[in-house]
Amino acid sequence: MSAGGDVEKVVIVGSGPAGWTAAIYSARANLDPLCLIGVPRTDPAPVLPGGQLMLTTEVENYPGFPEGITGPDMMQAFQKQAERFGSRVRGVDVTACEFGERPFKLTTSENDVVLAESVIIATGATANWLGLDNELRLATSGGGVSACAVCDGALPMFRDQPLAVVGGGDSAMEEASYLAKFASTVYVIHRRDSLRASQAMQDRVLSNDRIEMVWNSQVVDVHGEKMIETIELEDTQTQERRHLAVKGLFIAIGHTPATSFLEGSDIQLDDEGYVVVKGGSSHTNLEGVFAAGDVADPTYRQAITAAGMGCQAALDAERWLSEH
Amino acid sequence: MSAGGDVEKVVIVGSGPAGWTAAIYSARANLDPLCLIGVPRTDPAPVLPGGQLMLTTEVENYPGFPEGITGPDMMQAFQKQAERFGSRVRGVDVTACEFGERPFKLTTSENDVVLAESVIIATGATANWLGLDNELRLATSGGGVSACAVCDGALPMFRDQPLAVVGGGDSAMEEASYLAKFASTVYVIHRRDSLRASQAMQDRVLSNDRIEMVWNSQVVDVHGEKMIETIELEDTQTQERRHLAVKGLFIAIGHTPATSFLEGSDIQLDDEGYVVVKGGSSHTNLEGVFAAGDVADPTYRQAITAAGMGCQAALDAERWLSEH
Repeated sequence: MSAGGDVEKVVIVGSGPAGWTAAIYSARANLDPLCLIGVPRTDPAPVLPGGQLMLTTEVENYPGFPEGITGPDMMQAFQKQAERFGSRVRGVDVTACEFGERPFKLTTSENDVVLAESVIIATGATANWLGLDNELRLATSGGGVSACAVCDGALPMFRDQPLAVVGGGDSAMEEASYLAKFASTVYVIHRRDSLRASQAMQDRVLSNDRIEMVWNSQVVDVHGEKMIETIELEDTQTQERRHLAVKGLFIAIGHTPATSFLEGSDIQLDDEGYVVVKGGSSHTNLEGVFAAGDVADPTYRQAITAAGMGCQAALDAERWLSEH
Repeated sequence: MSAGGDVEKVVIVGSGPAGWTAAIYSARANLDPLCLIGVPRTDPAPVLPGGQLMLTTEVENYPGFPEGITGPDMMQAFQKQAERFGSRVRGVDVTACEFGERPFKLTTSENDVVLAESVIIATGATANWLGLDNELRLATSGGGVSACAVCDGALPMFRDQPLAVVGGGDSAMEEASYLAKFASTVYVIHRRDSLRASQAMQDRVLSNDRIEMVWNSQVVDVHGEKMIETIELEDTQTQERRHLAVKGLFIAIGHTPATSFLEGSDIQLDDEGYVVVKGGSSHTNLEGVFAAGDVADPTYRQAITAAGMGCQAALDAERWLSEH
């Protein structure tokens, strides 16, 4: 393992909306950014350079595209824009970071070391999935399986239809409440006979006529060729199986921020592994290290919010660099 | 003045990137938003529905448009997208707000009252201008006059050219530092013989070889037919006039957030008049009142950051409404 001689002004780790926006802004600020965009992998779920939108068929809520745009087309446009202004790109993962002294050292999956005066972490988060083959097939083909009600709930195919949400926490209850505005019925599938969600959230869901709890049940398969038709449920106590007809399945069993490569560094993560940023900015607890997008956002997780944070990170890094 | 009978779930005040993004997201969340987009005016500087981008020729840094897009085309796309999902639009200003009890009451420039369960304030901010006819003419026609170095500094026409910045505060120094990466020389024109900027910022600027201070001077006219050619300076002590050849003029004498209609309400503003939001969210000090975009952002002021905040405001309002 050898360290390259040149010290980069800004290294951007990640290649979703936050990473590319940080690249656009830092390239335009003459910082000559190097983007480490990751390598494709499939285990435990597909992860591609470009992030979660690479697995998204139609994006209707990113402002500026009134007719919608596919996730991959959108990410291609972001990358093209970043490269137009001179961003450099390497298809490597970062496997370890040393932020103890400057320049910072990032070890890549090609086993070399990148030196950097400042780093923008924009590695995103991935939705947790049940891990069923048919679930992922229908999720990545627009077949009615999703991990984001805000993104997909308003699609015409879900209007006045029976839908299911899997999960028992606050965000599952939020997804169910959100979907109940569109659906005929929202089934909430939960493995246990009580919820982990806060009492307020439980009250809201349990009092909603359109939401029906399905206790002690887990989804063991998803059926349907092009579009979801039924989910197969197993009773967690009796192991009995049955089919439930739904037009949409929303998986709400949490997200995993991509921060394992930060282990051993002094960067502050919250209990769930998200990078902690100072409210309304991209500043982490470490000077010269910035974070943007879903890796630092357990709340909103939208392409447009991630892109906004990417811009903030580039401007924060630019100001920080010109002060140091 | 009479109050309409219907109570709106969400009223969005303003029609820049933040307002339209809030509309897209709240319309998709079935909140049937009403957008009060303002009326055009010209005094003291042009203000149009659509906000500052309506006066911007080319936007190169909004992610998703690798070839750039004009400001008006971009705002038209945002509006079309908001309307596609059912946002309703009224071309009125809000002249007064009562947030003391719910429903909130917004008085419009047509002298009626709109009742609202929740309000998203996205009225933006305007750059302060010198108030010279030629300045505004060249600013709105892409003639080399701008109020935003981050937006326009990277344009090819400014590379290796003499540029001028007007102002003496921290943001003027930031603009000058930023532009010094591109320009041959950056003249900082200041009315006095010392700066208001912080010492650190002064040190940075005064030690930069490419930045030249022009003390005790004010810009009294801007010359050039299609593109700026010279600025006319008046010595504030001797009243002598001279011409300085520049290819770009950046006005950095502050911004004015559009919050005068909030006077008399209990909403918390900072010393400069910006709406205060809780870090990393759109929550103001008043429950049910949210703010997004430049009206609540003295720091970043970009279309993409405003749009991200608009999304946050819609999601915050949706969650707040479903809890109340």
